[in-house]
Amino acid sequence: MPQIDADRFLQDLNDLRKIGEYKTGVHRPTYSPQDMESRRWLMDRLAECGLEPSIDGIGNVYGRHKGNGPHLLVGSHIETQNQAGWLDGALGVVAGVALARAGLPVDVCAFADEEGHFEGGFLGSRSIIGELSEAEIDRSRSRNDGQPLRDALAAAGLAGKPRMQLEPGRHKGFFEMHIEQGTQLESAGLRLGVVTGIVAIWQWQLRFQGQQDHAGGTTMAERRDAGLSAVRLLAAIDQEFPRVCGPRSVWTTGHIALKPGAPSIIPGEAEVLFQFRDVEVPVLERLEATLRSLVNESNRREKCPATLSQMSRATPAICDPAMMAAMEAAASQHAAGLWQRMPSGAGHDAQYIAKRMPASMLFVPSIGGISHHWAEDTKEADLALGCQVLADAAEKYLAG
Amino acid sequence: MPQIDADRFLQDLNDLRKIGEYKTGVHRPTYSPQDMESRRWLMDRLAECGLEPSIDGIGNVYGRHKGNGPHLLVGSHIETQNQAGWLDGALGVVAGVALARAGLPVDVCAFADEEGHFEGGFLGSRSIIGELSEAEIDRSRSRNDGQPLRDALAAAGLAGKPRMQLEPGRHKGFFEMHIEQGTQLESAGLRLGVVTGIVAIWQWQLRFQGQQDHAGGTTMAERRDAGLSAVRLLAAIDQEFPRVCGPRSVWTTGHIALKPGAPSIIPGEAEVLFQFRDVEVPVLERLEATLRSLVNESNRREKCPATLSQMSRATPAICDPAMMAAMEAAASQHAAGLWQRMPSGAGHDAQYIAKRMPASMLFVPSIGGISHHWAEDTKEADLALGCQVLADAAEKYLAG
Repeated sequence: MPQIDADRFLQDLNDLRKIGEYKTGVHRPTYSPQDMESRRWLMDRLAECGLEPSIDGIGNVYGRHKGNGPHLLVGSHIETQNQAGWLDGALGVVAGVALARAGLPVDVCAFADEEGHFEGGFLGSRSIIGELSEAEIDRSRSRNDGQPLRDALAAAGLAGKPRMQLEPGRHKGFFEMHIEQGTQLESAGLRLGVVTGIVAIWQWQLRFQGQQDHAGGTTMAERRDAGLSAVRLLAAIDQEFPRVCGPRSVWTTGHIALKPGAPSIIPGEAEVLFQFRDVEVPVLERLEATLRSLVNESNRREKCPATLSQMSRATPAICDPAMMAAMEAAASQHAAGLWQRMPSGAGHDAQYIAKRMPASMLFVPSIGGISHHWAEDTKEADLALGCQVLADAAEKYLAG
Repeated sequence: MPQIDADRFLQDLNDLRKIGEYKTGVHRPTYSPQDMESRRWLMDRLAECGLEPSIDGIGNVYGRHKGNGPHLLVGSHIETQNQAGWLDGALGVVAGVALARAGLPVDVCAFADEEGHFEGGFLGSRSIIGELSEAEIDRSRSRNDGQPLRDALAAAGLAGKPRMQLEPGRHKGFFEMHIEQGTQLESAGLRLGVVTGIVAIWQWQLRFQGQQDHAGGTTMAERRDAGLSAVRLLAAIDQEFPRVCGPRSVWTTGHIALKPGAPSIIPGEAEVLFQFRDVEVPVLERLEATLRSLVNESNRREKCPATLSQMSRATPAICDPAMMAAMEAAASQHAAGLWQRMPSGAGHDAQYIAKRMPASMLFVPSIGGISHHWAEDTKEADLALGCQVLADAAEKYLAG
C-alpha cells in the first residue's frame, strides 16, 4: 500500500494557506494576484514531485505524470470564495500532490473558478471537458465587480494561451477529496464520507421592475414597490417549496438588492439571486415548475413585473460504484465504523469530470460544519486519514 | 404687493442645478465638494441681495436681513439625495433668495443634511433650534460609506466653527416652499398645495443574526438563514400593517442587505432599514406596537434573533393657521380653484423650525410625482406661480 507523508501533506496545505492569508482563512478570488501566486506555487510543487506542470488559457494548472498508465486524475480547485476557508478546494489539489509524492501514477489538476467568481462558474472543469465555449468566455463577467472575464484573463497573463482538453482514454478515473461543508459527519461522530453522488445546482436571477419614488409623497395604493413584490415572492417560495421538494433538497436566497437602497426611497428595482439543489432531476424539475408558477402568480397579482432568468443548470452526477467500493474498503481498513456513504449537497468539479470518466469523492468532516467562511477548519488527524484512505483507494482501484 | 422677478428666480435655480449636475438632475450629498460649492454659491447670492451671509459649524448657510423687523425666515435645504432631482430643497432656498430680491424683510437659511446622508438626519434644522448635541455629532456616521460626521465636517472645512442658534423673537414665522413629491396635485389638475401638517418619520433598523454556511452542505432543518428570517418578518409586516394603519399612513423597506451576499452562501446576517410615517402620534404609536409585537413573534418562531433599533423618531408638525390663511388668500388671488389644502407625506425642515415659531409650507406639483430621482421636475410656470404666491403670503402675514 502507498504511504502518504502526512507531515509533508500538512506542510504543503499550510504553505498554500499563507498565500492570500485572511484571519485563519484565505482570500484568493479567481485570477486575483493571490490566486495566480497560488497557481505558480502549485506548479513548483508539481515539478518537485516529478510531474510536468503547465497552466492553460482558462487558468487550469495541470501536472502530467511522465510514466506509463493506467493513470488516475486527482484534483479540485485552488481559488477560494471571498475571505473564506483554507481547505475548500485546496485540500483536493494538495491531496493529489501527496498521492504523486507517494509514487502513484496520477495526473493532478487544479480547475479554475469552481467557486463561480465569474458568471457560469466551474470554468476550468467545464473547459477541460470541452463544455465552455469562447462565446461564453466573451460574455462572462465577474460577480464581484462586473469585470469582463476576458479582461481578468488578460490581466492574469492568460490571454491567448490554449485551453487544455482531457486526453480520451488516458485516465481510469477521477478522485476528488473535499471537506464536507456540513455537520453530518461531525454530528454522527464519523471521520470519512464516501460520496454517492453530487447534487446539481440550478441558479436563478429574479428581477422586479417598480417605480422609484419618495417614500413620503406616494400613498400605499399608488406605489409600485419592487422590494415588496420581491419579499412577497420569496415568502411564497418559503411556503410552497417544502410541499414539493425531495427529502434532501435545499434552496437558498443568497443575495437581495433593492435599488437605490436608501431609507426614504421606494425601491424602483429589486434583484434576487435564488438557487436550489438536488441529486434527482425529477425533483429539480418539480422545483423549477413550482418556481415558474409562483413567478406567474406574482405577475398576475403584483404591480411590479418579475423576470426570471436561469443562470446555471447543472446535471447531478452519480459516483462510480467500483471507485466507491475501493474507497469503502480503504475506509474500513483505516477507520472501521467511522465512515458512511452520503450525497454531496455542494457542487464540485467532479460533477463535470464525471461526464468523461468514472469519478468519485471522499469527504472529511468540517468542524462545526462551517464553510465559505474564514473560520472553516478540519482536524489535522482527519486530513491525514482522508489522504491515506484516498491513496489506498487509488491503488486498489487501479489494481481492480 | 411684492413682485417676484420670475426670470431671475428660474435663472438662479438653473445656475444652482449646474453644481453637481447628473443627467437632468444633480448629485450633491451633504458635505461633498459639490455640496460645499453650492453653499458658497448661495452665500454669494445672499450677499448680492443685501443679506449678510454666513456658514456655521454644521454647514447651515444663513443670510441675515440687515434692516428692521418684523422678519420672516424662509428656506429649506440645498444638498440632495444621491443622483436625485434639481428642485428638492433647492427650490425653497432659492425662493427665499427671490423674496429677498423682491425687498421682503426675510432671513434666508439652507439647513444642512435634511436628506439624512448622516445618521440622525435634519442636522441643520435640529442644530439651529438647539436639538442636536455634540455627543450625537460624535456618534453619527455617513449612511453612504460609514465616514464619521466629524471627519466629514473637518474635510469640508467646518470643524471648530460655532453652530448658530435662532434668535428668540426675531422671526414672525417660517415659510418653506417645496415640490409635492407625489401625484395628488397633478392628478387633480391643481397647481398649489397649502400644507396643513407634516408627517413624522419613525425610522428603524432590523438586524437578524444567523449562521453563515455553505448552501449545499447544510440541510434546511439545520440552517440559520438570517435572510429568510428577514423575509418572513417583512411579509408579516405586509400582512399586519394595513389592519392597524391610519388612512394616510405609509411604510417602506428601503434597504435589505444579506451578508455576505453570495449565491451559494447561506446569509449569516441580514440588515433591513424600515420606516413608517403618519401625521398623528396615536397612529405612529399603534404602528410601533405592531412592529414590536411582530419582532417578538419572530424571535419566538425563528432561529435567527432579530434586534430592532429605532434610528429616528420625529414629532408631526401642524402648520400655523394664520400663515395658512395668508397663503390661501394669495393662492385664491393668483390661481383661483387651482389649489387645495393637503398634508405633507414627506419630512421637511419646517417640522423642526415649527418648534420655535409659526411655520407653514407651500407645495407645487411634481411632474409624474417623481422625486428622489434625477428625473424629478416641475413646470416653470408652476415654479414661478408658487414663488409669487409665497411672496404675497409673506407680505399679507407680516401685515396681519
